Amino acid sequence: MKLKVRSYDLDSSEPAVIIHDDDCRELGVKVHDRVRITSRDVWISLVDNSDTILERGEILVPNIYIRRHGLKDGDIVDVIHSPKPDSVVYIRKKMDGKKLEKDEICAVVNDILEAKLSNIEVSAWLTSLYINGMDLEEIAYFTNAMVDTGERIVFDREPVFDFHSVGGVPGNKVTPIVVSIVAAAGLMLPKTSSRAISSACGTSDFVETFCNVELSAEQVKKISEDVGAVFAWGGSMNLAPVDDIVIKVENPLGINPRAQMLASIMSKKLAIGANNLLVDIPMGAGTKIPTLNVARAYVRDFTELGDKLGMHVECAITYADQPVGQAVGPILEARECIRVLEGENHPGSVVEKACALAGMILEMGGIPNGVDKAHELLESGAAMTKFREIVAAQGGNYDIKSSDLVPGKYTQDIVATKSGYVHSIDNKAIVQIARASGSPSDKGAGLLIFKKRGQRVEKGDVILRIHADNEAKCVRAKELALRLTPISIEGMLIEKG
Amino acid sequence: MKLKVRSYDLDSSEPAVIIHDDDCRELGVKVHDRVRITSRDVWISLVDNSDTILERGEILVPNIYIRRHGLKDGDIVDVIHSPKPDSVVYIRKKMDGKKLEKDEICAVVNDILEAKLSNIEVSAWLTSLYINGMDLEEIAYFTNAMVDTGERIVFDREPVFDFHSVGGVPGNKVTPIVVSIVAAAGLMLPKTSSRAISSACGTSDFVETFCNVELSAEQVKKISEDVGAVFAWGGSMNLAPVDDIVIKVENPLGINPRAQMLASIMSKKLAIGANNLLVDIPMGAGTKIPTLNVARAYVRDFTELGDKLGMHVECAITYADQPVGQAVGPILEARECIRVLEGENHPGSVVEKACALAGMILEMGGIPNGVDKAHELLESGAAMTKFREIVAAQGGNYDIKSSDLVPGKYTQDIVATKSGYVHSIDNKAIVQIARASGSPSDKGAGLLIFKKRGQRVEKGDVILRIHADNEAKCVRAKELALRLTPISIEGMLIEKG
Repeated sequence: MKLKVRSYDLDSSEPAVIIHDDDCRELGVKVHDRVRITSRDVWISLVDNSDTILERGEILVPNIYIRRHGLKDGDIVDVIHSPKPDSVVYIRKKMDGKKLEKDEICAVVNDILEAKLSNIEVSAWLTSLYINGMDLEEIAYFTNAMVDTGERIVFDREPVFDFHSVGGVPGNKVTPIVVSIVAAAGLMLPKTSSRAISSACGTSDFVETFCNVELSAEQVKKISEDVGAVFAWGGSMNLAPVDDIVIKVENPLGINPRAQMLASIMSKKLAIGANNLLVDIPMGAGTKIPTLNVARAYVRDFTELGDKLGMHVECAITYADQPVGQAVGPILEARECIRVLEGENHPGSVVEKACALAGMILEMGGIPNGVDKAHELLESGAAMTKFREIVAAQGGNYDIKSSDLVPGKYTQDIVATKSGYVHSIDNKAIVQIARASGSPSDKGAGLLIFKKRGQRVEKGDVILRIHADNEAKCVRAKELALRLTPISIEGMLIEKG
Repeated sequence: MKLKVRSYDLDSSEPAVIIHDDDCRELGVKVHDRVRITSRDVWISLVDNSDTILERGEILVPNIYIRRHGLKDGDIVDVIHSPKPDSVVYIRKKMDGKKLEKDEICAVVNDILEAKLSNIEVSAWLTSLYINGMDLEEIAYFTNAMVDTGERIVFDREPVFDFHSVGGVPGNKVTPIVVSIVAAAGLMLPKTSSRAISSACGTSDFVETFCNVELSAEQVKKISEDVGAVFAWGGSMNLAPVDDIVIKVENPLGINPRAQMLASIMSKKLAIGANNLLVDIPMGAGTKIPTLNVARAYVRDFTELGDKLGMHVECAITYADQPVGQAVGPILEARECIRVLEGENHPGSVVEKACALAGMILEMGGIPNGVDKAHELLESGAAMTKFREIVAAQGGNYDIKSSDLVPGKYTQDIVATKSGYVHSIDNKAIVQIARASGSPSDKGAGLLIFKKRGQRVEKGDVILRIHADNEAKCVRAKELALRLTPISIEGMLIEKG
C-alpha cells in the first residue's frame, strides 16, 4: 500500500508508526503488528492506529526513523505487513531456559537496534536474562554482537588501557585523577564515562563543568594519541548503540541483568579498542555490590569474559560503605577532584583510591611499584600538567584552578543533634538528598559531608552542607536530609549487654 | 502543574499521556515516568513528550481514560509527578522466584487495570510468571483478584453450570450443542465464549452468524434464568476485564503462562457465578496439549484450583489429533452445528463429543446415565427446541434452519495426488489455511475436510474444499494448502523393515 510519510516527534522510546484505522484494515495490520517500508527496508515493530491524528493515506513516522533511513515529509512509500522476526523465537528459547547460539544472540541484538522488536519483547528478553541468565560463552557472543552494532575506534598507538567503575558509590570523582596519572606515565587511556541515570552525579556530569565531554570518535582518537587520554562522554560516540535502547527498558524495571551488564560494559571497551582493562568494583552497604562474595563473583566474571574476548582484565574491589571524599554533585566534585590534582592531600579517601587504581594500571603497563609511582606523579605535579593538557585539548582552560569552580549560592547546613562518633553514612540517602538539591542537572547543586565514619562529632557541629542553584530545591533537600538522617551518630557504647 | 486536557485516540494498548517537552522539564518527569491527575485520582503510567504535537500547557489523554474518568476536552487539571507503585516491587519479587502474598498479587492486578503499570512492566510480569510460575494458592489469590476487577452476575436460580474448552483444536463447534442439550434437561448454563485470537474461528465467531452474542450482564442473567442458557461473547460484559489488557501483551510474546491461563479462565467462571464447571481438554499433536501427561497436569490444576475457589470442577480429556467434524470457519461451522441439532448423525465426531461432554454435565447435575440421556435429548429434538429458544432470546430467528447458512461463494478444491489412507491431518496447517481464506472476519470463509484420519482416498478425490467471500483470498488459501499439504496420505505400508 502506498502511503505518504509525515514525521512526528513523540519521544517515546518505542518505535511506532501511526496509520489510519481504515488503512490498517486494508493492510491487514493491527496494534503491535509490524510493517515494513519496502523501498527503504525499514521495519517498524509497532503499529498504532488512529482516525483523528492523521488522514487516510498517511503514515506518521517517528523523527528518529525519518533521519536514520533518509526519509522526508511527503515521500510516498510502499508499506506492507511484516511477519514477526525470528528473534521472537530466540527470546522464547531464553524464556525456556535454553542456551542460545551465536547467530540467535546476534539476531536479537540486531532486531532491537533495527526496531524490529517492541518494548514488550525487549522487556521479556531482559526479564528472561535476569531470571535464566547466560553462560560466559553466550555473554562473549552477546558482547561481540553489541560491538558490531556501532563504531569501533582503531588507534595507531598500542597498547590501549582502559578503566571502568561498576558504579554505585556517591562522590566517586577519582576518574580524572586516575586517568591523568596514567597518561602522565606515558600510557594511553581513552576514557569514556557515563552521565548519571539514577545516581547523584556521573563522571561526565562533573567533567563537563570544566571542559567539553561530547567528543566525536575522531576527536577521541586524535586527543588520546596526542595527549595520552580523554575524559569523554560515551554517549556522544556511536559505541554499541543498542545499549541505549536497552537501558530505556531496564530503567522502569529497575533491573540490570548480569549478562546485559557485562556485555554492555565490555562491548564499549572492545569498541574503543582496549586491550588492558582495570575494573573498579566498589563494595559496601547501599551499593550494587553489598558483600565480598558478590564482589568476587564480579571479579571472576570480568576476568574470564576478558579472556574469552582477548582482553587482559584486572579488578580492584574498593571500599564503598560511605561516599568517596566529601563532595557530591557536579561542581562540588569537580572542585574536590582538581584540589587533589593541585596537591592538596585531602580528602585522604580520594587520594588513596585514585593512586591505588592508577598504580594497578601502571603495573599492567609494566611500570613496577605502581602505587608509589602514582603518588610520585601526583605529588610532582606531573598528573596536574597532564590534566591541564587534556582539559585544554577538550576545549577547557589550560590554567584551570579549583577555585574557578563555584558551587550553588544557596546553602543549608545540617548540624549534629548529639555528640558521638559517626557510625554510618547511608549512600542511598545521600543520593536522594543530592538529587533533591538539583544534582546532576543543576551544576552547582549537591552536598558536602564534613564528618565521615569513625570521626568524632560534637553536638551542634555542621555535619552536612547542601548547595543548590535554586532556593526551593535547597530547602526541599534540607527537609529530606532531616527526615532521612543520612549520617548516624552513636556514642562509643552501642548497646549494653 | 495545571494543564488543559485534550483527548486523542491513538489505539495503542499502552496507557500514555503526552505532555510538552518544556512542561515535562518543569514537572520533573521524563519518558516512562508516571503522572497523576490529582483532581480525578487518575494515574497514567507513561509520559511521552513532544514539542510539535501539542502546545505548552496541554496534556493529551487517550480517549479510554477520558471516558473512564469523566474528563472532557478543555478541563483544567492538576498534574503531578507520581512515584512508581509498589506493584513494581512485587513484580521484582516474582522475578526473583519468590512466592507472593495475597495483597501483593491484588496490587499487581489492580495496577494493571488502573494503568499504573506500563507494557514494559506487564511484559516483565508475564515473563516472570512464565518462567517462575505460581503455586495453586497464589493462583487462587490471583483468580479472586481478577474477579474483583469487574462485574459479577448473581443468579436467582441455582446451581449454575458452566463449561469451558481449553481450545486449540480447529472445527470445535460443539459448544451450542452441549449447551442446548444441558438446558433441555433443565439445568442452567450461562455460557460465555471468546472470539478467535490466533485460532481459525472462536465459538462467538460462528454463533454471531445466527444471533447476537454481545449481551449485557443483565441480558445474560435474564435469558439464562428464563430459557436456561445463553451463548454470549464474554468480551461484551465486564467480567475480569484486566484479562483483556494482559492478552494484548501476551499476544506479541506468544505466551500464555499457566498461572495467567488458569486465573483468566477461572475468574470469568467465578464472575458468572458458576458452581459446577466441566473443562474440556483437547489433547493431540499441533494443539496446546500434545501429550497425556500434559493433559493430566491440566486436570490436576483445574480440579485442585476449583477446590480452593469453592467450585466443583470436572475435566474431560478429548481427542484432538485432527479437527472436530468437517467444517472450519464461521458460517461453515454454524451450519454443521445446526445440522447435528436438526438430527443429522454426521459428522460422528461432533455428535459423540457433544454428547460425551453434555453427559458429564448432566451427571454433575444428578441426572444418571448422562451420555445416553444426552443422545436422547438430541435425537428427540428437545435440544433443537431449546436451541431455537436461546437463539430467539438472543435476537435470532426461532425458525432457523441449517440451510439458511450459506458459505462464501468462491471455492477451490484440493484433490488427492495419490490413493491410500489419510495418515494425519495437521491442525496448525488447517488453521493457517482457514485464516488465509479470510476466517474468522469474513463470515463465509473457511474450509471443509472431506476425508478424516484412517479413511480410504482414491487419487483425484476432493479431500479439501476452501470457501471464501473474496476471490483473491480463496486463491491464496489454495496456494497455501498446496504448499502445506495438511492432509497426508500413505499406503497401508508405511515403511519396509
